[in-house]
Amino acid sequence: MSESLFVGVDLGGTSIKVGLCNDAGDLIRKYEGPTQADGGADAVLSNIAAYVKELVPPGTPEWDAVKGVGIGIAGFLNIPEGIIDFSPNLPFKNVPVTQIMEEKIGKPIKINNDANVAALGEAWGGAGKNIPNCVCYTLGTGVGGGIILNNRLIEGSTGMAGELGHLSIVADLEAIQCGCGKTGCLETVSSATGIIRMARDAVERGDRTSLTFVEGDLTAKDVFDAAKGGDEVSQRIVSRAAFYLGKSMAAVAVVVNPQRFIVGGGVSRAGEFLFAQIREVFDKLTPGNAKSGVEIVAAQLGNDAGVVGAAGLFLRA
Amino acid sequence: MSESLFVGVDLGGTSIKVGLCNDAGDLIRKYEGPTQADGGADAVLSNIAAYVKELVPPGTPEWDAVKGVGIGIAGFLNIPEGIIDFSPNLPFKNVPVTQIMEEKIGKPIKINNDANVAALGEAWGGAGKNIPNCVCYTLGTGVGGGIILNNRLIEGSTGMAGELGHLSIVADLEAIQCGCGKTGCLETVSSATGIIRMARDAVERGDRTSLTFVEGDLTAKDVFDAAKGGDEVSQRIVSRAAFYLGKSMAAVAVVVNPQRFIVGGGVSRAGEFLFAQIREVFDKLTPGNAKSGVEIVAAQLGNDAGVVGAAGLFLRA
Repeated sequence: MSESLFVGVDLGGTSIKVGLCNDAGDLIRKYEGPTQADGGADAVLSNIAAYVKELVPPGTPEWDAVKGVGIGIAGFLNIPEGIIDFSPNLPFKNVPVTQIMEEKIGKPIKINNDANVAALGEAWGGAGKNIPNCVCYTLGTGVGGGIILNNRLIEGSTGMAGELGHLSIVADLEAIQCGCGKTGCLETVSSATGIIRMARDAVERGDRTSLTFVEGDLTAKDVFDAAKGGDEVSQRIVSRAAFYLGKSMAAVAVVVNPQRFIVGGGVSRAGEFLFAQIREVFDKLTPGNAKSGVEIVAAQLGNDAGVVGAAGLFLRA
Repeated sequence: MSESLFVGVDLGGTSIKVGLCNDAGDLIRKYEGPTQADGGADAVLSNIAAYVKELVPPGTPEWDAVKGVGIGIAGFLNIPEGIIDFSPNLPFKNVPVTQIMEEKIGKPIKINNDANVAALGEAWGGAGKNIPNCVCYTLGTGVGGGIILNNRLIEGSTGMAGELGHLSIVADLEAIQCGCGKTGCLETVSSATGIIRMARDAVERGDRTSLTFVEGDLTAKDVFDAAKGGDEVSQRIVSRAAFYLGKSMAAVAVVVNPQRFIVGGGVSRAGEFLFAQIREVFDKLTPGNAKSGVEIVAAQLGNDAGVVGAAGLFLRA
């Protein structure tokens, strides 16, 4: 077997997903097991090694074809040296992951942060396949991002490239403080958290909205459902989230000039209702040469983006 | 002579500058002659060839060491195919420059637009030397830009990467229309043109300012001189130009996360008076991880940036 294969690991606080990819970014198969974070760093790392060997049994021709194992991790990483400085959901502090995992697995290891890795997965094997320049947004609790230029993940000088949720973009009169300490960040409005906040504010203000009658905690999906059903307050909230997403893409377009924006994460499931509004704003705010031929599309890989992108670290980072 | 040398050409409407660089981006010597645009495209291209051969005489060991000739051009270019589609100040329309110049000179030729080339020159041989990730601003009639990541010039999918003057960033209540057709672009405020416009508006409004007594046409330098001398209206104009520059850098910092911003062009001659204000705004608006260690410095090469960057196209584009 002369083909090169790559293994990707998506290390989450609850479960570890592992996947095998070919050199075109296609996911051949995957496997998943519990993280068992309570057991400490070494137990977690041993689990990763066990799941990788379950996915591709050592001694097989496939195992021999595996050129490396990439790991996507939520946390503060020293990427060049392969160290997890600190992770909010995992029992890691100053752990030299690359070194430990190379010993446990016997293959080259690379690490990168989960948002970058998910973006790389979409760009390499998903909605950005064969598109050399694309920018990915992940709309979830926050707004994550990742930038691929000339088929390579951009990291920047301190690994902060593609932190699109912290574009300071909301008009001063509407800006609130972000978790990062600044005001007016994109994710204060266009994340699930931002949408829920605007919905709660509307309900508390006594606005006439069907959201008042939602039982239990409001979700972003409640807001999209109400907006699609004609609720004007919800429509304004969605328009505002879409406006700042489109405006941020106009800024990104003149900085790195991608051919495609890929939007994933829970909020993106609102679908065409959301995308049509984003495209309208982007078209209005972007100079002609920077928007011609530019597409704004939905992510395709869903939860698999993490393992595919982690596998892609060997070819595309 | 085993060293590799590179020739850069800065093709302007009035004069053609040519320069010889080594592979470290040092300018060894330069030469300049008239463009003679009235003579048509072929005369201009023959002049380039003649000036290059004046700079490095064919048959010498230096000539043999020249690995290529890069040309920076103001205009709409098809960079991959080496064609000038159209140039506002030169007699070129659909001219296959790369092909013609390879015949005239007998060396590989590359072309790129003048703003990208000047940025590359500063990054390669000037204020960005040995810094892999930097972003250059040129503050002149407009606001130009160029982005260097991993030591490579970023072009984007249609060559529009680094068009920082068209970041839509000015608050709606203050935004005016830009030459590109959009409103609120950075260059409507932070270019020489923008500064002069704000100054004229102040004079016409009857604001109490020493600018009222400037003889002849107002220049950006008049505004900086008045501001340094204590004129409050001029100080507000400078602060506004600096504010939006700093704000734009905060946006660029979370998109591509450079280690250094390099600011050149006529307006940048205002020096520390301007830079201190830009740094203050950048520090206030940028998340911690994206600003730590980031420097905002003046360009070093002045008018030589064009020839150095054009020479650098062979190593860095």
